[in-house]
Amino acid sequence: MTAPAEPYLLTPGPLTTAASTKEAMLRDWGSWDGDFRAMTARLRRSLLDIAGDTDDVDGEYDCVPLQGSGSYCVEAMLGSFVPRDGHALVLANGAYGKRIATTLRYLGRRHTVHDTGDYLPPRAADVERILAANAEITHVVVVHCETSSGILNPIEEIAAVTARASRRLLIDSMSAFGAVALDVRTLPCDAFVSSANKCIEGVPGFGFVIAKKDVLRDAKGNSHSLALDIHDQWEVMNRTGQWRFTPPTHAVAAFIEALRLYALEGGQPGRLARYTRNRDVLVAGMGSLGFEPLLTGQWRSPIIVTFFSPADPAFNFERFYELMKAQGFIIYPGKLTTVESFRIGCIGALDETIMRQVIEACRNALGTLGVTSGAPATAALGKREALVA
Amino acid sequence: MTAPAEPYLLTPGPLTTAASTKEAMLRDWGSWDGDFRAMTARLRRSLLDIAGDTDDVDGEYDCVPLQGSGSYCVEAMLGSFVPRDGHALVLANGAYGKRIATTLRYLGRRHTVHDTGDYLPPRAADVERILAANAEITHVVVVHCETSSGILNPIEEIAAVTARASRRLLIDSMSAFGAVALDVRTLPCDAFVSSANKCIEGVPGFGFVIAKKDVLRDAKGNSHSLALDIHDQWEVMNRTGQWRFTPPTHAVAAFIEALRLYALEGGQPGRLARYTRNRDVLVAGMGSLGFEPLLTGQWRSPIIVTFFSPADPAFNFERFYELMKAQGFIIYPGKLTTVESFRIGCIGALDETIMRQVIEACRNALGTLGVTSGAPATAALGKREALVA
Ligand SMILES: Cc1ncc(COP(=O)(O)O)c(C=O)c1O
Ligand SMILES: Cc1ncc(COP(=O)(O)O)c(C=O)c1O
Repeated sequence: MTAPAEPYLLTPGPLTTAASTKEAMLRDWGSWDGDFRAMTARLRRSLLDIAGDTDDVDGEYDCVPLQGSGSYCVEAMLGSFVPRDGHALVLANGAYGKRIATTLRYLGRRHTVHDTGDYLPPRAADVERILAANAEITHVVVVHCETSSGILNPIEEIAAVTARASRRLLIDSMSAFGAVALDVRTLPCDAFVSSANKCIEGVPGFGFVIAKKDVLRDAKGNSHSLALDIHDQWEVMNRTGQWRFTPPTHAVAAFIEALRLYALEGGQPGRLARYTRNRDVLVAGMGSLGFEPLLTGQWRSPIIVTFFSPADPAFNFERFYELMKAQGFIIYPGKLTTVESFRIGCIGALDETIMRQVIEACRNALGTLGVTSGAPATAALGKREALVA
Repeated sequence: MTAPAEPYLLTPGPLTTAASTKEAMLRDWGSWDGDFRAMTARLRRSLLDIAGDTDDVDGEYDCVPLQGSGSYCVEAMLGSFVPRDGHALVLANGAYGKRIATTLRYLGRRHTVHDTGDYLPPRAADVERILAANAEITHVVVVHCETSSGILNPIEEIAAVTARASRRLLIDSMSAFGAVALDVRTLPCDAFVSSANKCIEGVPGFGFVIAKKDVLRDAKGNSHSLALDIHDQWEVMNRTGQWRFTPPTHAVAAFIEALRLYALEGGQPGRLARYTRNRDVLVAGMGSLGFEPLLTGQWRSPIIVTFFSPADPAFNFERFYELMKAQGFIIYPGKLTTVESFRIGCIGALDETIMRQVIEACRNALGTLGVTSGAPATAALGKREALVA
């Protein structure tokens, strides 16, 4: 197999986008112009529709796009919606949950971390117990798909228990929104965030916060930052139709095209179906090479899959990475602290045919490295067994 | 004249970029991959070269690109470099100077504003006097080209007087850097910022901070924000070659091509020469239609020119804007509070031939509106005379 001119990105964003999405960037847009304002309005409307808030006039939520990467939106959400005298419960099971805690530390917002490690999701019973014991907690913050392992956290049960305890829920749905269902009609939350270059398959440059209008209204004066003040961005955008500061015009144009392709594919159910097939073909194929996924099937997302590194001493991630790249596939290093691993993403403009080529490329790479099996060390597996028991 | 498919943007960024700059966005890059890391390294190195810090090993400055718009970089510079017990003197003569003060208010940093209005620059003697009288001032913050009027502030004399008073200088050179000389070998400053979509002619998506290495080092722990922590971005980028969070990969790829075109044009002197010709053709041509620039020649930048709106009651900016757009030119509204005005930018991938077409388009638009002369009201001119006397 010879490498295509441009490798596929088997990474959780930036990801491989459709040719037409990139071609939408072949012109320049004036950010003050009416044409661009119309694009911004369409983008906001489409995202609210995907989130299930379909009433243009009386909708309960609004969508506020924000320049920068996804982490900026997480910080903007926390800084704008957790009041200065608030207290957040952070449900962490990986790098992005930990980043939420780091962000709250920067902001000087009180917080408590409930860390369930790399293999396990937070569960309703535990959250219920923590909330019951800690009346000062005002907000629960949860990561939808924790991309560092690929675990799909059960946000429905977390939302239910948070609502029952009359606390507010904030969700980092960066890598899940658009593919995994997140419908505000059935999932009570104050706000969630995602970004352009994940499951909608746009290019990076902005993210967005979807929040209740009354939460946006009440956020006035809360933010620690002008750039990340979601209330101000919302207020100016609603008043003028414009972004407060220079928007990433080309990334917005690409996103409009990505939204068109998304609708063509059947929206969230269509996208979820393709990603799920990608994942299933990937896991089965990698299994045939001996590779073992980190997570048990129950929690495995259709977004990205973490595999244990093979026990075979001939395996070397850097060389494996380069061999895969030479065959046209960019994979992703692991982000776990306790075991050696690597990740393969299932999202982006690619399908099961590509996934089968990925498996063949893996087989070739192992052959070149002289690795006879992808099977992990028993110790790594043992660690998992002990934790998920 | 019929409108071209894509209008020229006579705006101070986003601006019209070269076709090849946009075409560089026709592929996807993995942000973790070595190829992209090399692009990031090249971008940083090129910007330092343009700033005059040409020694790769022993350079005194470093360049830290940051996701988001230019205002994010201004905020990052202020939050990271003005210590919590610092006190900034803000030299304001327009919207961007005012935004600096607003940002400092968000950050809770003490500051004093010296406002010289829309027509006049800050001068060394005044700054000297203010610094002498206020020992608590630690930093002076100045806007290089105040894009809201197009005034080119005399940062050389401000830098000299700030250094003499042993205070630190921070510069918002957003719309000037790359065209107007800013050489750290002759202009003492702690840091300055600019962004991708200004005089280097890239697309929007990130900005950059160029700062002394010891200032970057000392900034550890200062920042109010994780996303805008320039010390952390710098430290991680130097250690890993990567951006901490997802970078706007396509905007970076476009910027690399924009840098190539920039060098081909002869770097800063070449670009300045073209923009200066654009401005001179513009001002002369508009003058032949009766239009009067806001600023006297001494302070008029080659970046953007503000014109008084015509006194003729038949003039209406919205209609004028649409008539210009229909002929293929996007102009820019004024940003002044005291007089009616509009702006025409001189930057971007356009030359004096285009500028002559702009004048013709203006002539046509005035004809359609029934405006006989572009001359402003005597009252508006009188206001200027009174102020600059
Ligand atoms: C769950 C989650 N949160 C936050 C982020 C951070 O987003 P960004 O890298 O765009 O800042 C990511 C990125 O992959 C993510 O997957
Ligand atoms: C001098 C100056 N400062 C700050 C900004 C803000 O930059 P941005 O709109 O990218 O946030 C601009 C934008 O034109 C500018 O010209």
